[in-house]
Amino acid sequence: MSVRGPRGERGEQADRIVAAARRSFAASGYAATSLRSVAQEAGVDPGLVHYYFRSKTGLLEAVMQPPEGFGASVAEAAQHPLDERGRAFVRANLRMWEDPVSAEVLRSIILTAAQEPAAMQRLRELFSELVLAVVSHGLPDAERALRASLIATQVVGLVMNRYIWQVGEIATLPADAVTDLVAPTIQRYLVDPLP
Amino acid sequence: MSVRGPRGERGEQADRIVAAARRSFAASGYAATSLRSVAQEAGVDPGLVHYYFRSKTGLLEAVMQPPEGFGASVAEAAQHPLDERGRAFVRANLRMWEDPVSAEVLRSIILTAAQEPAAMQRLRELFSELVLAVVSHGLPDAERALRASLIATQVVGLVMNRYIWQVGEIATLPADAVTDLVAPTIQRYLVDPLP
Repeated sequence: MSVRGPRGERGEQADRIVAAARRSFAASGYAATSLRSVAQEAGVDPGLVHYYFRSKTGLLEAVMQPPEGFGASVAEAAQHPLDERGRAFVRANLRMWEDPVSAEVLRSIILTAAQEPAAMQRLRELFSELVLAVVSHGLPDAERALRASLIATQVVGLVMNRYIWQVGEIATLPADAVTDLVAPTIQRYLVDPLP
Repeated sequence: MSVRGPRGERGEQADRIVAAARRSFAASGYAATSLRSVAQEAGVDPGLVHYYFRSKTGLLEAVMQPPEGFGASVAEAAQHPLDERGRAFVRANLRMWEDPVSAEVLRSIILTAAQEPAAMQRLRELFSELVLAVVSHGLPDAERALRASLIATQVVGLVMNRYIWQVGEIATLPADAVTDLVAPTIQRYLVDPLP
């Protein structure tokens, strides 16, 4: 039995609706997307969108779900000893972004959030959870939030340049080379004395 | 005489049109914005928008112009000796983003680029020019593009978290504290041996 919900026709239809909403939110913005246009794009009856997701907010919530395995992947990285956790965290992030399916999900989350405050709030929460996991073992309570925030700046900038904007050398290097270049920064934000 | 163009009624009207386009591109996206709606928002006759900017592309070009002083501010930072240039570059960036007028321009450039490929291309060029200036003195030719790209990841992530998304501790700290925290990373990307 799958953990992702019902298979068969019903599960497939719901997946198709979410995929259509994802494309439309990312390309045209949340405000400019209607349940009707999502239904049309997904090739289903509008009533079915209401049936599965209740409202546009319900559809947004579905679109803002992180890709399968992201939470687990970050949690695994967070279990590494402090002196190698920076590298493990960079690798966990790159692994998700190098996979076309999860990259598409992550990309649409970021583009949707850029234009819709409710989605931005969801992205903030998601990001805090993920990054805070990495600083939650072996660091002083008083430093965790700042270290997490510094790590977030470097990871977000890496993702924006490499995957969203695709600009500069960082966009074309192999993932292992990117890890070698950026992991030391994450590691320093994790453990170096704060100024 | 101002270098920004004619003052008086004509200059003010053009400024008002660009400001209206800026808001609309950033909030609704470039595709969803019409010259007519920009004219209405700016409170001018649609013919005037055509007269000043020719086309939607002309208006986009105007919206994508970096704020006054950004180029000069970065060029000044780029003249600092290598051992203090990282800090100077971070300060030049923060100075532009801490100013509400130039921050609004930069913010709309980033949000417009997120949804419009032509604007993204313009942002890429702009960014390359600005960041390449910082690595252009005193560094080996072969390393410049990679160092510029690494610096860009950290600066973009800082800007996204602090100013666009306003998430985490980095969003609320005083600018001087942010400089102390992030400048060492830029400095390392500038001069530390590459892996």
